[in-house]
Amino acid sequence: MNPLTAHTEIASFTPYPIHHHPVRIQLGQESLTVVWDHGHQSEYHYLWLRDNCHCAECVSSLTREQVFEICDVPLTIKPLNAYISDDHRIIIEWDYAQHTSQFHPGWLLSHCYSDVALQEKKWLPEIWDKARISDELPSTCCDSIMQNDAQLLTWLRELRDYGLALVTNVDTSPNSLIKVANRISFIRETNFGTIFNVEAKADANSTAYTDLRLPLHTDLPTRELQPGLQFLHCLVNDATGGESILVDGFKIADYMRENHPQEFHSLSTIPMSFYNKDKNSDYRCRGTAIVTDSNAEVVEVRLANFLRGPIDVPSHQTMALYTAYRCFIQLTREAKFQFFHRLNAGDLIVFDNRRVLHARNAFDLKTGMRHLQGCYIDRDELLSRIRVLERNTIIDQ
Amino acid sequence: MNPLTAHTEIASFTPYPIHHHPVRIQLGQESLTVVWDHGHQSEYHYLWLRDNCHCAECVSSLTREQVFEICDVPLTIKPLNAYISDDHRIIIEWDYAQHTSQFHPGWLLSHCYSDVALQEKKWLPEIWDKARISDELPSTCCDSIMQNDAQLLTWLRELRDYGLALVTNVDTSPNSLIKVANRISFIRETNFGTIFNVEAKADANSTAYTDLRLPLHTDLPTRELQPGLQFLHCLVNDATGGESILVDGFKIADYMRENHPQEFHSLSTIPMSFYNKDKNSDYRCRGTAIVTDSNAEVVEVRLANFLRGPIDVPSHQTMALYTAYRCFIQLTREAKFQFFHRLNAGDLIVFDNRRVLHARNAFDLKTGMRHLQGCYIDRDELLSRIRVLERNTIIDQ
Repeated sequence: MNPLTAHTEIASFTPYPIHHHPVRIQLGQESLTVVWDHGHQSEYHYLWLRDNCHCAECVSSLTREQVFEICDVPLTIKPLNAYISDDHRIIIEWDYAQHTSQFHPGWLLSHCYSDVALQEKKWLPEIWDKARISDELPSTCCDSIMQNDAQLLTWLRELRDYGLALVTNVDTSPNSLIKVANRISFIRETNFGTIFNVEAKADANSTAYTDLRLPLHTDLPTRELQPGLQFLHCLVNDATGGESILVDGFKIADYMRENHPQEFHSLSTIPMSFYNKDKNSDYRCRGTAIVTDSNAEVVEVRLANFLRGPIDVPSHQTMALYTAYRCFIQLTREAKFQFFHRLNAGDLIVFDNRRVLHARNAFDLKTGMRHLQGCYIDRDELLSRIRVLERNTIIDQ
Repeated sequence: MNPLTAHTEIASFTPYPIHHHPVRIQLGQESLTVVWDHGHQSEYHYLWLRDNCHCAECVSSLTREQVFEICDVPLTIKPLNAYISDDHRIIIEWDYAQHTSQFHPGWLLSHCYSDVALQEKKWLPEIWDKARISDELPSTCCDSIMQNDAQLLTWLRELRDYGLALVTNVDTSPNSLIKVANRISFIRETNFGTIFNVEAKADANSTAYTDLRLPLHTDLPTRELQPGLQFLHCLVNDATGGESILVDGFKIADYMRENHPQEFHSLSTIPMSFYNKDKNSDYRCRGTAIVTDSNAEVVEVRLANFLRGPIDVPSHQTMALYTAYRCFIQLTREAKFQFFHRLNAGDLIVFDNRRVLHARNAFDLKTGMRHLQGCYIDRDELLSRIRVLERNTIIDQ
């Protein structure tokens, strides 16, 4: 094993295997160009390099956090000298404060921020309609993800990419869900509790707790951060009706962007309000139904007709918003997008609540019981868990 | 009492007192204009009015959630007839499905979305520098907020507006903080637990848990939703040093927008990455250090030098981002913005972690103990609590 592979000098739990070596460096006006042995070129700004010095003076070896602050060196900091060492590191002696930095080739290449590199690192969701998810629905049995980290990782990656995955053979005793959820993380609490029971109740404070049809929606659009993952674990389902319907909101948004660009624009720029008033809570959130990031990629859908508050945008935007909203809802009602699934006792369905809209047909309580338990875990926790599991997987390779 | 005041027909816990009556209505092409007795004019689109029908057919009286869906009526829906009733409601008979809607004047006026009305409803923060907060720091003793809802409401509104407030005379036994926090809501759990202990530890996984200086930062910028309120309760503080330093991030952002517009633009549009790697977690978040809403108002600041990951934006943005970041940090270091406060045993400081940057001077463990307990509650829960408390206050008036 190359002594650099373990890479302990970088205050990180992530290993950075060395796949390529730097063969040539070139000092520019404000950046260093590195040519790698596979022909790739990276350009690193001097400030960036100084900022990412991993020496014991710059990064605390105890907390792995940076102690150095980039504000404390001149904006024009430059190398006095730079070279590739015998063990393939890049060494830079700075023109300020007599500081020297060393860069590990595995770390450096994996942090290249060239356009090509940024493009390659981009995560792309597996977007689906009814036909695709019917063929490809990720599914696993409970034992395998409870007992095997590699199988858990595979399932979590599928859940991240499709935004939807099934677990079968989950113990049907109440609160079994907690053990499964804790394989990822702690659970996100809300005013509906840590675990919520989806069954018809006399004093229902949400349509979820009746036997009525629930139209397609995301849960808790009334919160600034809608819950990321939603877990629905079926303990009993003897009633007629009550099928789950799932629609990939990213698919609807993509379709809309292509076929109804004006409505897409309205729905991703004009905010709606969502309200949920109860005896002891009064949640309100204002946000767009389609959320895009700085690259104009759709990253979130926020929608529940039964939780909408009155539209409160300037008068000239009102009709545009209604038109766009109706367009979105009408698309979600099309059969080609709707995946039907009847949950049976022992099934656990998990989906990205900020992407996949879910609905429930009405059910008939006279024909039998129906009892689901649910909980939420945020995207942050899912992604953190995947990264931690990947550390070990990479080491095992 | 006017029978309309209680306003039970509107599925809401919020009372809508009637301050004004409609005196005249006018049917336009796609909207209804209402002239009120104080001269104000409101324009309500027909779709908006149909959408906000509160009759028992449209809104479930059990869950107070809308059953009707606006997609199920034509986009061109219009009144067949509209009038003001003897008890000052506006009655509309629709040209579709023989439906009639009634609008309570108190509800209708308070939901007016004219430009003037939207402007009046806008929340404005109380932005501060050192001089202002030294004069105006909101402060209360623990008993008053634990025992009196009106005093709790006053304090919570101040906390919302200033983003910073003090509670004195809090019981110094461990976990007393939980009782105070629960006066607002449940606590937000993170990978650091529900309650975290800020004291020097041998195996610190964060600079917070050492005796080192902590530069100005927000907590958990590594999470998509940074925690809203941060609570820091001082149990013991006998050590020399360790003063808390607080800076209003909104003030810095405003100052930057005015004096360094290019840097403000860069920092509010080019994302940075924040990382926090631990043995069992690996959190990463990419977001701008200054967050603005759709009205270009600053709504959030995200910043911790010691949690920054390598900058990973296209090469042509790298220097702009560094320049802007340095500008922000240098401003936060100016004395005129920094409020110093030494926490004494029994003090509890609460601040909006998405707005107010906090820092700590190094302290000297040899001179005595220092032990704080902390927790988080999100903005959603603060605002919900304020609204619930306001319901009762309005009724009491």
